[in-house]
Amino acid sequence: MVMSAVVNTYPLSSYTFGTKEPKMEKDTSVADRLARMKVNYMKEGMRTSVEAILLVQEHNHPHILLLQIGNTFCKLPGGRLKPGENEIEGLKRKLTSKLGANSPALVPDWQIGECVAIWWRPNFETIMYPYCPPHITKPKECKKLFLVHLSEREYFAVPKNLKLLAVPLFELYDNVQRYGPVISTIPQQLSRFQFNMISS
Amino acid sequence: MVMSAVVNTYPLSSYTFGTKEPKMEKDTSVADRLARMKVNYMKEGMRTSVEAILLVQEHNHPHILLLQIGNTFCKLPGGRLKPGENEIEGLKRKLTSKLGANSPALVPDWQIGECVAIWWRPNFETIMYPYCPPHITKPKECKKLFLVHLSEREYFAVPKNLKLLAVPLFELYDNVQRYGPVISTIPQQLSRFQFNMISS
Repeated sequence: MVMSAVVNTYPLSSYTFGTKEPKMEKDTSVADRLARMKVNYMKEGMRTSVEAILLVQEHNHPHILLLQIGNTFCKLPGGRLKPGENEIEGLKRKLTSKLGANSPALVPDWQIGECVAIWWRPNFETIMYPYCPPHITKPKECKKLFLVHLSEREYFAVPKNLKLLAVPLFELYDNVQRYGPVISTIPQQLSRFQFNMISS
Repeated sequence: MVMSAVVNTYPLSSYTFGTKEPKMEKDTSVADRLARMKVNYMKEGMRTSVEAILLVQEHNHPHILLLQIGNTFCKLPGGRLKPGENEIEGLKRKLTSKLGANSPALVPDWQIGECVAIWWRPNFETIMYPYCPPHITKPKECKKLFLVHLSEREYFAVPKNLKLLAVPLFELYDNVQRYGPVISTIPQQLSRFQFNMISS
């Protein structure tokens, strides 16, 4: 893991974007998703998921790479760990699955950095909290967000059914309606870092 | 500075609270405050302020100590640095001024920990952002929030015109109307820490 209060941030134009086969969502509705979560919980206990904050810069302002599904829903790249899987290794696996080229030589050497936030799902419901609420002894999911330090040049292969967007912090901030509570407060969680904006 | 992902948190009942002489606000209105900020900016340049997150626990849930002025407005203990003053030393000075006993032997040995958030004021206005907005080359204030690690026993002397409240994270979360954007997102900024709840 790379821990640093200074984060090198490179221009969006220094990265190359290609496409690869679609990665379909496992669930077609929120109800399906919660039902599958319940089944998995019975088998494996609390779900741990890991997500990545990939940073680029444009006009000297930090932007985050988000995967867009359809026309509205955005999510961070990442996903669920296998039971017992290491968080860092699991996040690398998920990033490669979501954004890595099929050719291993082109897959970024993911440098996983600081954990910047942890969210808890107390029940089989969509609502999550940035703490485990009092009296909840068996949370259903723990979601951890990590900063990922990108190198100056990378190739990302984006599944054909998704779009990869570079969204500025000023667009995310205070925009819970569009991005939800987890993504819209990333600017606050990143505020303590100093971004070293590197020109191409 | 003390850097740790694990934060020991002691019961509110293990601390002792007394009173001391009032600490009046320097300004009686928001307009006065912004006007004074402008005068100081002309003399000294950008204001840097430092504020403390003091944590206690009740019912195994983290609570933050907030100073209440009047019946509604809450703020973190802290204040403005002198020009050139070290952040850590300045925060200790401010904490002693706000919450330390008049007798030096009773003043806590403030253990300043991680910076958890930085907020920027682009103009002489009340609005602040968790980043310096693009095109703002001369921000007017930079406010840094630090975690402060309290020992198991401390004595706090609260100015007579203020109240010291222990507010649970679940009360702060998503409550921008009551606590404002800075304090209401402290739960998200603390979510990455593991709280080691110690019983008395």
